Amino acid sequence: MSTYTAPLKDMRFVLNELAGLGEVAKLPGYEEASPDTVDAILEEAARFASGVLDPLNRSGDQEGSKWADGEVRTPKGFREAYRQFAEGGWNALPFGPDWGGQGLPKLVATPVDEMWTSANMSFSLCPLLTQGAVHALALRGSRALQQTYIPRMVAGEWTGTMNLTEPQAGSDLALVKTRAVRVKDDKQGDHYRISGQKIFITYGEHDLTRQIVHLVLARTPEAPEGTKGISLFVVPKFLVQPDGSLGERNGARCASLEHKLGIHASPTAVMIFDHAVGYLVGEENRGLETMFIMMNAARFGVGLEGVAIGERAFQRALAFAKERLQGRDLAGGGTVPIIRHPDVRRMLMLMKSQTEAMRALAYVVAAALDFAHKEDNPEKQKHHQAFADLMIPIVKGWSTETGIEVASLGVQVHGGMGFVEGTGAAQYLRDARITTIYEGTTGIQAMDLVGRKIAREGGATAKAWLEELRRFDAELARSGNPDVQSLRGQLAAGVRALADCVQFIVSEKSQHAAFAGAVPFLKLAGIVAGGWQMARAALAAERLSSKPGDASFYQAKIATARFYGDHVLVQAPGLRDTVVKGAGGVMALSEEQFLAA
Amino acid sequence: MSTYTAPLKDMRFVLNELAGLGEVAKLPGYEEASPDTVDAILEEAARFASGVLDPLNRSGDQEGSKWADGEVRTPKGFREAYRQFAEGGWNALPFGPDWGGQGLPKLVATPVDEMWTSANMSFSLCPLLTQGAVHALALRGSRALQQTYIPRMVAGEWTGTMNLTEPQAGSDLALVKTRAVRVKDDKQGDHYRISGQKIFITYGEHDLTRQIVHLVLARTPEAPEGTKGISLFVVPKFLVQPDGSLGERNGARCASLEHKLGIHASPTAVMIFDHAVGYLVGEENRGLETMFIMMNAARFGVGLEGVAIGERAFQRALAFAKERLQGRDLAGGGTVPIIRHPDVRRMLMLMKSQTEAMRALAYVVAAALDFAHKEDNPEKQKHHQAFADLMIPIVKGWSTETGIEVASLGVQVHGGMGFVEGTGAAQYLRDARITTIYEGTTGIQAMDLVGRKIAREGGATAKAWLEELRRFDAELARSGNPDVQSLRGQLAAGVRALADCVQFIVSEKSQHAAFAGAVPFLKLAGIVAGGWQMARAALAAERLSSKPGDASFYQAKIATARFYGDHVLVQAPGLRDTVVKGAGGVMALSEEQFLAA
Repeated sequence: MSTYTAPLKDMRFVLNELAGLGEVAKLPGYEEASPDTVDAILEEAARFASGVLDPLNRSGDQEGSKWADGEVRTPKGFREAYRQFAEGGWNALPFGPDWGGQGLPKLVATPVDEMWTSANMSFSLCPLLTQGAVHALALRGSRALQQTYIPRMVAGEWTGTMNLTEPQAGSDLALVKTRAVRVKDDKQGDHYRISGQKIFITYGEHDLTRQIVHLVLARTPEAPEGTKGISLFVVPKFLVQPDGSLGERNGARCASLEHKLGIHASPTAVMIFDHAVGYLVGEENRGLETMFIMMNAARFGVGLEGVAIGERAFQRALAFAKERLQGRDLAGGGTVPIIRHPDVRRMLMLMKSQTEAMRALAYVVAAALDFAHKEDNPEKQKHHQAFADLMIPIVKGWSTETGIEVASLGVQVHGGMGFVEGTGAAQYLRDARITTIYEGTTGIQAMDLVGRKIAREGGATAKAWLEELRRFDAELARSGNPDVQSLRGQLAAGVRALADCVQFIVSEKSQHAAFAGAVPFLKLAGIVAGGWQMARAALAAERLSSKPGDASFYQAKIATARFYGDHVLVQAPGLRDTVVKGAGGVMALSEEQFLAA
Repeated sequence: MSTYTAPLKDMRFVLNELAGLGEVAKLPGYEEASPDTVDAILEEAARFASGVLDPLNRSGDQEGSKWADGEVRTPKGFREAYRQFAEGGWNALPFGPDWGGQGLPKLVATPVDEMWTSANMSFSLCPLLTQGAVHALALRGSRALQQTYIPRMVAGEWTGTMNLTEPQAGSDLALVKTRAVRVKDDKQGDHYRISGQKIFITYGEHDLTRQIVHLVLARTPEAPEGTKGISLFVVPKFLVQPDGSLGERNGARCASLEHKLGIHASPTAVMIFDHAVGYLVGEENRGLETMFIMMNAARFGVGLEGVAIGERAFQRALAFAKERLQGRDLAGGGTVPIIRHPDVRRMLMLMKSQTEAMRALAYVVAAALDFAHKEDNPEKQKHHQAFADLMIPIVKGWSTETGIEVASLGVQVHGGMGFVEGTGAAQYLRDARITTIYEGTTGIQAMDLVGRKIAREGGATAKAWLEELRRFDAELARSGNPDVQSLRGQLAAGVRALADCVQFIVSEKSQHAAFAGAVPFLKLAGIVAGGWQMARAALAAERLSSKPGDASFYQAKIATARFYGDHVLVQAPGLRDTVVKGAGGVMALSEEQFLAA
C-alpha cells in the first residue's frame, strides 16, 4: 500500500529555483521565512501529513460524516487529528502575527496546504474554509467583530464557513433570497435576523470544535435586486457573550448532509437560518464585493487541490506500478512489474509531468501574491497583482481539470484494481471531481479570464505576459541541451497559439463568440503556462546538474520537461483552432434542435 | 428529472444512411431484417428500455447487489425485469435461429444493446456476458455441450459468465493458476475437476435465474507454461441431469462481491472453484485461442457501452440545462435556462457530437461484421473482416475513453448538483469508469491495434483504410456547403496525421517506441474515424435535407459535424506529434528516477 510522502525535493526546487523564495523572504514582514525555518516547517508538516492525516483518508471516506438530529459526527480520528492540528499551530500558519498567526508568506503556506490536501482532502477543507472566513472578516469586519472572532479562528478553536449557495442561486449569486432584517434589542445590541436556506455548506456543521462561525450572504428588505443588493453577515452557531464565552444556541441549524460522489468525510450541509442573529460585515449591499476580493485566495486554494490530488494519485499509482507483476518485458524474460511497460510508463509520466507543471505554476503565482502584498514599489506591486489576477483562473481551472485527468490515469494504471474501492485510487478521482465545480466552475473561471482579465483591459496584462514568454525564448535559445531545444520549439508554438487567441479575444465583437471558446482558451493558457514553468525548471536543472548529489533529480527534471513538451504542449495549436474557428459551431443549433431523441 | 428516450431518429439515420442496413438485409440469412421488422424491434426495445430498465437504474445503484452466505440478491425490481426481458425474447435477439435465436444481423442487435446499456448498464451486463458464453460454446463446444446449454441460455432461462481473471492474472492470462484435473466416474462421465480462485466475475452469482453457466480458464496438470497451456471449461452452478433438469450443486461458489466505484447493481464476484465438475470446451491447451476469437464481440460490446453511456449522460445533462435557471443571457434580459450560456452549449455539443460520431462508427463496424459473417464473395468477406479487426480496438478504446469524458462533462453541466449523487449524473461517470478497463484496458487495445493489427501485416489494412479516406475526400470536395468544406480540411489534416503515424509504426524498429505512442495513436485513429463518419453523415444530411419534415434534423447533423471538426478533429496533428516524437520521453527516466518524493 502507498503512504503519502511529501515531495519535499520538488517543493524545495520549485520554491528556490522557480518561485524565488529568497526574494520573497526579503520582503518586509516576511523575515521569518529564512531557509532554516522554511525547511523545518516543511519537514514538520510532511510528518503531520503522512503520520496523522493520510492514515485517516480512506477510513474517513468509507465512514463519511454522519448527520443525526442536527448534529454531525465526523469520521473516527478526525477530532483527535484536528486537535493536534490546532495545537501544532498549523491553523495559524497563513495568518498575520497581528491575529496570532505566524506571518509567513503565501509561498510557504502553499506547499504546506498542498500536503494537507494530498494527505486528506476532506480534512483540509475545514482549515481552508476557516481561512476564507478569516480573510473576509479581516478585510471588512468591524474592529469589534475582528477582535471577537479572528484570534479564536486563527488558533483553530473556532472554525469558519462560507454560506453563499441557495437552491436557486449557484453560479448566479444575484438570485440569493436569504433575508436579513435589522433589529435592536437590549440583549444583542445592533444586529440582524437572518432567515433562509443555504446549501452546499462545507463543514456547515461538525464536531471538531464547539463553535462554528458562518459567513452568510443575505438581502436586507430594501436592498436593490441583483448582485448589488447582497450583504455579508457573521452568524455564529453559539452567540458570543461579552466575556467571549459561548452563550445561547443561535438559529442556524444543519437540516441534512448531501450524499456526494466524493469528499465523504467533509460534511456538506444544508443550513437553515431561522431568525438567526447575525452581524453585518462591512457595509450593507456590498457583500458580494467582499466575497469577490477574497475569491482569489479561495480559487487559488482550490487550484492547489488539483496539484495535491495529482501528486497523491501519482504516488499511489507509482507504488502499484512498481509492485504489480504482470506481463513480460517487450525485450523478453519473465514477468515484470508493470512500470516496465511503455504505456504504463507513459501514464506515470503524464501524471508526474503535469503535476510538476501545475505545482510550479501555483507556487510562482503564490510568490506573485506575496510580492503584490508586500512589495514597496507601487509599479512592481501593480505588475505582480495583475499577473496573479490573470493567472488565478488558470491555476484554478487548468489545475483542477488536469487534477481529475491525473486521478483518472491513476485508476487506469491500477487496471481492474482501480475500480475496486479498497485500493484507494478511485477515491482520488471521486474527491477530485468537485474541484472543477466549487468556487466557480471551469466555465466561470474561463469567463473571468476571457472577460474580466483580458477583454476588459484590452489584453494588456496578457500581452505583457506574452512578451515575457518571448523574452524567455531567448534564454532557452542559449541552452545546448537537445531536450530543452525540443521543448523550446513546442513552447514557441504554444506562445504563438496563445497570442493568436488573445488577439481574437480583444478584437472579437461578439461576447458569445469569445465565451464559446473560453474553456479551450483557459486550457491552452494553462498548458502553455505549465510548459513555461517546465522549461524554466529544465534550465535551472541544466545549471544545477553539475552539483554533486542530485544529478539524477536534475536529469529527471529535464527529461520530464521534454516529455511534457511532446505529450502536453503539442495540444496547443489544436486548441488555438478551436478558440479562433470553433465559436460558430457552439451556438449553431437552436435550443429546439437539442433533442433527447 | 430525465427519462431515457431511445435516440431512434439518429439510430435509423445511422443504420440506413451510414451503415447500409439495406445491403445487410440482403445477405443470406438476414432476410428477416426488413425495414418494418427492424422498426418494430427498435420501437419495442425503446419502450422496454425506457419503461422497465431505466426506472431501475438509480435504485439499483443505490441498493446494489448484496452477498449473504454465498447467495447474491440483485436490487429490487431486477428479477422481475429480467423475467420480462427473457419472456420478451430479448435475450434471443442476437443468436442464430438454430439455437432458438431470431437470426437478426449484428447491425440490428447493436442499437438494441445500446438501449439496454443506456437505460441500465448494470442490468445489460448479464445478457452481455451470457452472449459471450454462448458464443464460446457455439464456437468450440461439443455437440452435446451445445445442445445441453445453448438453447436455455439463448432463451434466458440460464445465464453465462466468463471466468478469466485471477488475483495474479489480469491483463496477463499466461499467469492463470486454476487447475483442471481430468477424471472419469460413473455418474458424471468424462469430466474435469476444477479448483482455484477467480475474481472480477460479472454476474458470477445472482438470483435472476437458478442456473449459472460458468466458462472457466484453467490449466491441466501437464499443460505447458504460459498462454499455450490454458484450457476452457464449462462449469455449471448446478449439475445438469441427463433429462436436462438441474441436479446437485456444483463446487463453484461465490465467496464475496467487490465494493466498486460503479455498476453497483451488477454483482462482481470472487468465485471459488473447489473440485467443481467441469467439461472441456474444444481441445486442451487451446482455451485462450477460443477466448481470443470471441474477444472481438466482447470488445465491440464494451465499446458500445461508451456510446450508450455517452447518450444517456447527454440526455440527462440536456434535460437539466433546459430546466435550470441561472444567470442572464449575454444579450441581456432576465434569468435564463443555462443552455443559453455558450460554455454550457459547448459542453452539450461536445457530448452530442462525440456520441453521434461514436455511434456511427460502432454501427458501421457492426455492419462490417455482418458482411464478414455472411458475405459470399471470399475477397469481400476478407476485406470486411480485416476492416472490423482493425476497427474493434478503436471502437473499444476510443469510445470508452470518450464515454468517460462525455459522462464527466455531464456532471460538469450540472454544476454542484452533478456532484450530489441524487441527481444521477455522477452514476454515469462511475459506471463508465470501468469500460476502459475490462475486456482489455485501453493500453491493451492500443497494443493490439499497433502490434497485431498494423505492424504485423506491414500496415496493409490500415493503408487500405487510408486510401478509402482519401477517395472519400474527393466526394467531400463536391459539396458546396461551407460547414462541410471546413470539416473536409480538418479531416484531411487528420488523415495526414494518421498516415504519418502508420508509416512510423510500420517502419519503427523498436517495439518500445511504437508501443509508447500506442494510446495516443488509438485516440488519433478514433478521432479521425469518428470525423470520417461525421463527414459521411453531413453529406447524407445535405442530400436528404430537401426532403420534407426532417430538415431541422439534417441541418443539425451538418452543424454538429462542423462542430466536431472544430472541437475534436483539430486535436489530430498534436496527437501525431506525440506518437512520432514522443516515444523517447516515455522511457527516458530509469525506474529509480520515479520517486514518490
